[in-house]
Amino acid sequence: MSENEAPPVVDGFRFAGISCGIKQSGAPDLGLIVADEVVPAAALFTRNTVKAAPVVIAADRIERGRAQAILVNSGNANACTGKEGISLVHSTTEAIAAALGADVDTVIPASTGIIGQRLPAEHIEGAAEELVADLSADGAERFAKAIMTTDRWPKLVHKKVPLGPGVEATIVGIAKGAGMIHPNMATTLAFILTDAPTHSSFLHKALRKGAEDTFNALTVDGETSTNDTIIAMASGKLPISPIGGTDRDAKNFTEAIRSVLEELGQSIVKDGEGAEHVVRLEVHGAPSEDAAKKVAERIASSLLVKTAVHGCDPNWGRIISAAGMAGVAFDPNKVEIRIGDVVVAKNGMAAGGGAEQRAAEAMKEAEYSIKIKLGPGNSKAHYTFCDIGHEYVKINADYHT
Amino acid sequence: MSENEAPPVVDGFRFAGISCGIKQSGAPDLGLIVADEVVPAAALFTRNTVKAAPVVIAADRIERGRAQAILVNSGNANACTGKEGISLVHSTTEAIAAALGADVDTVIPASTGIIGQRLPAEHIEGAAEELVADLSADGAERFAKAIMTTDRWPKLVHKKVPLGPGVEATIVGIAKGAGMIHPNMATTLAFILTDAPTHSSFLHKALRKGAEDTFNALTVDGETSTNDTIIAMASGKLPISPIGGTDRDAKNFTEAIRSVLEELGQSIVKDGEGAEHVVRLEVHGAPSEDAAKKVAERIASSLLVKTAVHGCDPNWGRIISAAGMAGVAFDPNKVEIRIGDVVVAKNGMAAGGGAEQRAAEAMKEAEYSIKIKLGPGNSKAHYTFCDIGHEYVKINADYHT
Repeated sequence: MSENEAPPVVDGFRFAGISCGIKQSGAPDLGLIVADEVVPAAALFTRNTVKAAPVVIAADRIERGRAQAILVNSGNANACTGKEGISLVHSTTEAIAAALGADVDTVIPASTGIIGQRLPAEHIEGAAEELVADLSADGAERFAKAIMTTDRWPKLVHKKVPLGPGVEATIVGIAKGAGMIHPNMATTLAFILTDAPTHSSFLHKALRKGAEDTFNALTVDGETSTNDTIIAMASGKLPISPIGGTDRDAKNFTEAIRSVLEELGQSIVKDGEGAEHVVRLEVHGAPSEDAAKKVAERIASSLLVKTAVHGCDPNWGRIISAAGMAGVAFDPNKVEIRIGDVVVAKNGMAAGGGAEQRAAEAMKEAEYSIKIKLGPGNSKAHYTFCDIGHEYVKINADYHT
Repeated sequence: MSENEAPPVVDGFRFAGISCGIKQSGAPDLGLIVADEVVPAAALFTRNTVKAAPVVIAADRIERGRAQAILVNSGNANACTGKEGISLVHSTTEAIAAALGADVDTVIPASTGIIGQRLPAEHIEGAAEELVADLSADGAERFAKAIMTTDRWPKLVHKKVPLGPGVEATIVGIAKGAGMIHPNMATTLAFILTDAPTHSSFLHKALRKGAEDTFNALTVDGETSTNDTIIAMASGKLPISPIGGTDRDAKNFTEAIRSVLEELGQSIVKDGEGAEHVVRLEVHGAPSEDAAKKVAERIASSLLVKTAVHGCDPNWGRIISAAGMAGVAFDPNKVEIRIGDVVVAKNGMAAGGGAEQRAAEAMKEAEYSIKIKLGPGNSKAHYTFCDIGHEYVKINADYHT
């Protein structure tokens, strides 16, 4: 969001972001989103077997398909903290619920930060009144800053969706994350807020569909945290009939959710620590979508490919070799690889004619595409990834817990 | 091998290693192993869908279960080189077969080095006579040096196996590899030579069994090359009846093969570019062996774990989080993690009491173990891996093809 833009506002929601003392630096570390009343809500959570305490509670509470508030702290993940971790989620959300005059079961918790350390719940509980007092309709950026860990910038997206003649719904997306990169400071969190009226089941469907080729198709370092959470809430303030089903409005709304998640996801990849390049990888000509996705994921996760991208090295041998490790059958002699606009490999062999030199130039760009065509199949998939360089190692090896 | 040891000799084999001009540096780049006659042989090859030309030909020739020679070049992988690559394997092995007076179908090729460039076959063919003239029974170290790419040292193992009263078989193992680490200079190659008499089917079984928890349970960076090859040959010079079946000799022999592969594998991991630590990871208490292996592989491949090891950071949250991504069900609240002798996490939580400080000390060692107990299951698995640090990035990003 550029500075001269109006702050993102979405009817029916207020935002807060303050410092409560979890982060020793004194930086903001406590955020709150509150709807005017209990509204439809849906969420997606990490698929990691090891789930943080707030994820366990949040999944339980959101199952009712409704929520009034989202309470987020940064600086401590409340993960691997046993029964005490669970009980501290109860006590902190109860404190906020009391300050709001809301039902505790409608307060959805999320945490991000260091794993395996007790949540300093007393800081959160002691700041409950101050946090609620900080709520304002234009507070989204304060909230976005309060949930940052290693992020270099707050991540906000603001979108209007035309729904029928003369009606526009608003979608605001707020996220944090720079991949699971910083020591013990894991987690991608994203929050989607809209004034459109809808049901939680449709919201859930839109979220799932939207995440599929956005949040579930990007990687910084292949890690998924104990705390990853995406939550959507719909205030329904927009005076139209509820969105759902498969009509044009439903499709537009679903696509808008996807595009908000896509923008947030791109911002997260760009913010990958030490990342200098963001690559959009496209796999074409695969025998099935599943095969295309497997190959894309394998290439995007390859450390050798990531370091080649870092070094602007058009090392297509690493790309084809990574593809070959995906467990997908294809004929290597049919493979074509394109870096930017340059075909570097054709029929599984070097294209020659100075292609690599031209590709090396294309790789100096901050953003570019790599396309690999596996064969004559009709299926494709894409993945967004960033390079891995010295900054990554520095942050993850040289920094101590 | 220390310098004052006798050079490894195994009855029935001669070795050569020379420079033929593939490497621009002039370093040795052509090696040959020759048996006195055609003998039983077996091999394992890369599971990468993209197989180099020598792998395709080698797999075809070794299927007959016999071989007389192994021809290896370094400096060029002859991978992603299309039909010409295949035809150059034919012409180079024919040149060597002619110089040896052997059948070309008994000459097994292997290559390692840069991917996607034409093999300079004329150098190999022109050096055929010189290579054969260089053969000698004590030439194993010359051979080992000729097959190196980014290796910092040649890798030789020499073992005696007691087989019945007063009889000892010899096994010599020679390998190259420092993980698939160097740009375009991929590949692990290993050659196992014994004077024991046996059949190719038994040799293959021993090789497969031996590789399972050695070469297939180690990782530098999770990559598998287009050229990975392990070949075993048995000269049968030892005057005993052929080893096979399930008797004590068969077991001892199989175990000796495994231990030679293990030593070679350890040497490869230690030689991981920039590696400062070698970690033996043990997963215990898993519900099945397959589950244990999946968890071990996920942890050993985690970039966050590898960078934590590089930084001597006892960040067990990264270990448990990586375990949770293996797609294996376990109760996080039962997990125990031990670094060296220090229990850093118990019941899925920080052990406390200064455990992390003590573990950080243990992590300063060049070699140590990390043990994770998932729960009450009976199955276990292990994996050997090394850290990833600045040297890795430097070699893989800063070096250009």
